[in-house]
Amino acid sequence: MSNRVKEINRIGVFTSGGDAPGMNAAIRAAVRTALYNGKKVTGIYHGYQGMIENSMFDMNSRSVSSIIQKGGTVLKTARCMEFKTTEGRAQAYENLKDAGVDALVAIGGDGTFTGAEIFSREYDIPVMCIPGTIDNDLNGTDLTIGYDTANNTVIEAIDKIRDTAASHNRLFFVEVMGRDSGCIALNAGVAGGAEAILLPEKETAIDELIEMLEHNAGRDKSSMIVIVAEGDKNGGATNVAKRVKEKFDYFDTKVSILGHLQRGGAPSSADRVLATRMGYAAVNELLKGNTRSTVGIRGSEIVTTPLEEALSKKELKLNEDLVEIAKIMAI
Amino acid sequence: MSNRVKEINRIGVFTSGGDAPGMNAAIRAAVRTALYNGKKVTGIYHGYQGMIENSMFDMNSRSVSSIIQKGGTVLKTARCMEFKTTEGRAQAYENLKDAGVDALVAIGGDGTFTGAEIFSREYDIPVMCIPGTIDNDLNGTDLTIGYDTANNTVIEAIDKIRDTAASHNRLFFVEVMGRDSGCIALNAGVAGGAEAILLPEKETAIDELIEMLEHNAGRDKSSMIVIVAEGDKNGGATNVAKRVKEKFDYFDTKVSILGHLQRGGAPSSADRVLATRMGYAAVNELLKGNTRSTVGIRGSEIVTTPLEEALSKKELKLNEDLVEIAKIMAI
Amino acid sequence: MSNRVKEINRIGVFTSGGDAPGMNAAIRAAVRTALYNGKKVTGIYHGYQGMIENSMFDMNSRSVSSIIQKGGTVLKTARCMEFKTTEGRAQAYENLKDAGVDALVAIGGDGTFTGAEIFSREYDIPVMCIPGTIDNDLNGTDLTIGYDTANNTVIEAIDKIRDTAASHNRLFFVEVMGRDSGCIALNAGVAGGAEAILLPEKETAIDELIEMLEHNAGRDKSSMIVIVAEGDKNGGATNVAKRVKEKFDYFDTKVSILGHLQRGGAPSSADRVLATRMGYAAVNELLKGNTRSTVGIRGSEIVTTPLEEALSKKELKLNEDLVEIAKIMAI
Amino acid sequence: MSNRVKEINRIGVFTSGGDAPGMNAAIRAAVRTALYNGKKVTGIYHGYQGMIENSMFDMNSRSVSSIIQKGGTVLKTARCMEFKTTEGRAQAYENLKDAGVDALVAIGGDGTFTGAEIFSREYDIPVMCIPGTIDNDLNGTDLTIGYDTANNTVIEAIDKIRDTAASHNRLFFVEVMGRDSGCIALNAGVAGGAEAILLPEKETAIDELIEMLEHNAGRDKSSMIVIVAEGDKNGGATNVAKRVKEKFDYFDTKVSILGHLQRGGAPSSADRVLATRMGYAAVNELLKGNTRSTVGIRGSEIVTTPLEEALSKKELKLNEDLVEIAKIMAI
Repeated sequence: MSNRVKEINRIGVFTSGGDAPGMNAAIRAAVRTALYNGKKVTGIYHGYQGMIENSMFDMNSRSVSSIIQKGGTVLKTARCMEFKTTEGRAQAYENLKDAGVDALVAIGGDGTFTGAEIFSREYDIPVMCIPGTIDNDLNGTDLTIGYDTANNTVIEAIDKIRDTAASHNRLFFVEVMGRDSGCIALNAGVAGGAEAILLPEKETAIDELIEMLEHNAGRDKSSMIVIVAEGDKNGGATNVAKRVKEKFDYFDTKVSILGHLQRGGAPSSADRVLATRMGYAAVNELLKGNTRSTVGIRGSEIVTTPLEEALSKKELKLNEDLVEIAKIMAI
Repeated sequence: MSNRVKEINRIGVFTSGGDAPGMNAAIRAAVRTALYNGKKVTGIYHGYQGMIENSMFDMNSRSVSSIIQKGGTVLKTARCMEFKTTEGRAQAYENLKDAGVDALVAIGGDGTFTGAEIFSREYDIPVMCIPGTIDNDLNGTDLTIGYDTANNTVIEAIDKIRDTAASHNRLFFVEVMGRDSGCIALNAGVAGGAEAILLPEKETAIDELIEMLEHNAGRDKSSMIVIVAEGDKNGGATNVAKRVKEKFDYFDTKVSILGHLQRGGAPSSADRVLATRMGYAAVNELLKGNTRSTVGIRGSEIVTTPLEEALSKKELKLNEDLVEIAKIMAI
Repeated sequence: MSNRVKEINRIGVFTSGGDAPGMNAAIRAAVRTALYNGKKVTGIYHGYQGMIENSMFDMNSRSVSSIIQKGGTVLKTARCMEFKTTEGRAQAYENLKDAGVDALVAIGGDGTFTGAEIFSREYDIPVMCIPGTIDNDLNGTDLTIGYDTANNTVIEAIDKIRDTAASHNRLFFVEVMGRDSGCIALNAGVAGGAEAILLPEKETAIDELIEMLEHNAGRDKSSMIVIVAEGDKNGGATNVAKRVKEKFDYFDTKVSILGHLQRGGAPSSADRVLATRMGYAAVNELLKGNTRSTVGIRGSEIVTTPLEEALSKKELKLNEDLVEIAKIMAI
Repeated sequence: MSNRVKEINRIGVFTSGGDAPGMNAAIRAAVRTALYNGKKVTGIYHGYQGMIENSMFDMNSRSVSSIIQKGGTVLKTARCMEFKTTEGRAQAYENLKDAGVDALVAIGGDGTFTGAEIFSREYDIPVMCIPGTIDNDLNGTDLTIGYDTANNTVIEAIDKIRDTAASHNRLFFVEVMGRDSGCIALNAGVAGGAEAILLPEKETAIDELIEMLEHNAGRDKSSMIVIVAEGDKNGGATNVAKRVKEKFDYFDTKVSILGHLQRGGAPSSADRVLATRMGYAAVNELLKGNTRSTVGIRGSEIVTTPLEEALSKKELKLNEDLVEIAKIMAI
């Protein structure tokens, strides 16, 4: 391993898959840590796509000035079909070799990790991954970059809706992101004081939901907000609202679909610090000879996990206690 | 008229119709101005409904402490069918008389004004109205309370969407409020730097929209955002997105429906100052003997307009210059 | 005049003096309006300094992409002593001539206007100014770019302070910007529900202030906030707090000095629309042959005023009614 | 122990010491968890002061409606000297006994914990504490309620200052809270991308600071921000700025003192969830027979620690790795 350490001269940095607030802070940290250690840095645009299309540039310390507070990713991102082919990866490797890139920091989610794992094995190029996605659905870490910001974005929306709901005795359905993971829905539901939360991981019968709403309506609740994860089995907020309305018309019913605004915005303090620590750790791990792994956070410690392990069966991130607490809080 | 002035001992204050951020600031200003002038104040819950149901309470200066920064309305609001009947209004008048209320400050929109006009004529009770609605669609004033806040809420959402749009080369459709009025769509569209804005006041052919998007896509725009007022003739953002997608698939297409979060949130500084000036003016006008009118702002001056005039044919609030500017800015 | 119109081929755009949120929106609007009209555009860095140092670059439509939501100014700004000399201005003119710049759009405050007026007369180069300063202290316009955003920034700070003040029965002194102008202090004071407001335009005796605070303390106010404009004659919030504390110790006393955070932040919707309209108007006025003037807004109309007039004795922007209202609201 | 469990019929809830955003979420969770378990709840105003002055009231589920999003504490808070006396505590106990309160949930910091420990021993009343303070300086927990929100508040201020700093080539000193603890300064410094951070736990020689600033100025940094914790040994931002300015005048120098606005504001999502989990756990622990302890979070688990232990020598919360990372990030 120590042989490899000596070989790293230029680290390529890229973001891939869905963007998340805090990715820029991770880029900045990786770039500056590499430069601080006397390494050169190549920025790769649009993730794996940019490797294949040779869309790369030399980065210095100023390349990442004043980006820590910006949403999105200055390196852009994409989902790349071509990288799933042998030819695509071969082209990518050629371009990296020509550019002198001999190690990679990959920031993204599941798909990014998978690509990194295959590529790193095929071409024996050291890669460290950084978990960046608002969905908090990755293994090897308690928290992913962007999740905290997304939660704050959602509760700001819920707080606004609560203002008007309370003035009117209304029932609101708010659809939040999470196709397979209810993390945002659960967290933001608890933090927003929602009356009910529909999660992809749980079946919620519409009848039970109505019963609960009727119970609450009878207990002087002046407004009710139901959070619906987009991956809920009942088919999204619009459908749930329609079905509830057929049987429960005590309150006027309204729907908000937050959509991609949940992916944007200036990253929260916690996401910036997390991303900075992860970017710093990813480069240091590369320089120590670690590879084909992802950095993560456990409690307050930065840890690493082999990609092979991180890509195996999902850890359950949904906090069952919190599901229970959410119900008690709605009394 | 001066006879009537002497008669006012207790002013009733209420909000009615859709709520808007800044209504609390108007309530606070009306209450404190009345108290300052030695008058008593009655708060009426749920607008006209509360008059009929006798849901009223005595207000003092502390009743409106620390509400200036709150969204919604502490007096709650409702749309009241019963007040449209002779019996409903008779009951309301009985209750007001019993409570000693001999003048009214009504905060709301079109429906509120209409109710106030009829009631004031029928029972000869002095009423001053204050225009409160996020839609900015009332006569007799350049600006309504809540409009500025709603614009800020929408551009914060657009800014967040722009972050992720720019990272991905995506096309976004954002639906904003405005069933009959394109004021929010136009303002927030210009302020958010939208590539196109669909207004209820204008017909926009989908083909033209697609042509424009294609033109922009060919000119290196890294993201595009189209604002759709809910009252747009093409049927809302979901429909427009679907129809565009059929012919224009250069970009990935996503939809956000902001919904009622646009009604909430802490009022902006401008809305708080406007509401404070209007609440102050409404009470002073009552005390000077003015009635059956609405306060408004023209330029930087507070003015009053008879309700009869304010309720006649709508002024066109849509700034045609701004429609033109919006197009030029999208180049 | 029509002769001159034909002559304009390339418009130089710059920001000068103190920066203000919304300047980027004005730059964007001026640039795109010029391009739309077939003109070329030169961006000048650091205001007059950049003219002298020849720090200029060609701008296209993409140069101003995604800047409408950014605080500060992408063209940077400076206060330039050298431009006050004949030699400095001669050098600036040489550089502009070499770059083919034959008209200017200047965004800034008093000093910017003065420089533009002199320069335009000396070298007969058409100049239109745009009022950009958070202080709202310029003639020829009801509102300057940045003022609305600064007011919102200040009330967000006051709202936060109110939270903790109310929990503790505390007295807060908050120092806000405004060396000569009390506009921010007065507006944010009214919008923040301040108990007292100290303005540069008014003498406030410390004894009167104490008397008022004592009066309020006796009336169950659970917290008190005093806004102090930095230009207040008593010497800033720290001094005022110290002097009050000597005689009034009913409440625990705390000081916040907001400082330059008032200049930053994403511009409000109103500031972006105002800046966009002004940038558009400034270029159109140049193309119509207007010069040595500033654009402004009166009510809802964009107007122009000759610089000579705009630079003469200040209009009083302080709304005396609002000073009175502020007192009544503090009961 | 099981004997005691049976005895709890009415739980008293209070906040004490400095307020922190999220305290209301903790109150709400404790109240609703107690009600859910069939217990009665008494709210105590102004912490220990309210016990002595018998300022208490019966709470139901609606008492805590729509408070989760509010800064400050609806139960008010105070620092109480009288509770440090035997007589004070005796009076407090009498009042609690009269009100039927037979267990307590105390939300606050060090002083609150100390009072709870003594009182609980003296009168054998079960008490569970919840750590609430923006300073994150308590033992027995990785995070205190309010810390995350305060960090977000500070970086929003820094982001705004960066906007104007970057437009002007300026040097800013921003004073943040932390008399003994540099947690906020360090976190917000890293998250805000500060060029230097002065911590109470570290001596920073002004000469070294100047050297570093000069080094940066020579490397094209367009702006510099120095975070100064209020407890820094050099005497606060005003003093540091003055001393730096004497020797380093390359940049214009400005100071912001954020003050108590750092204590206010709507709590972040993370703080609301943390507070909800802690309030829930505190009551459940009481009902299980636990006492004289504080709840806390370690990693993602809720834990409890005896107050005696929590009040012994402080854990070092300052993350030394992060101090190192902060320096590398400033290159």
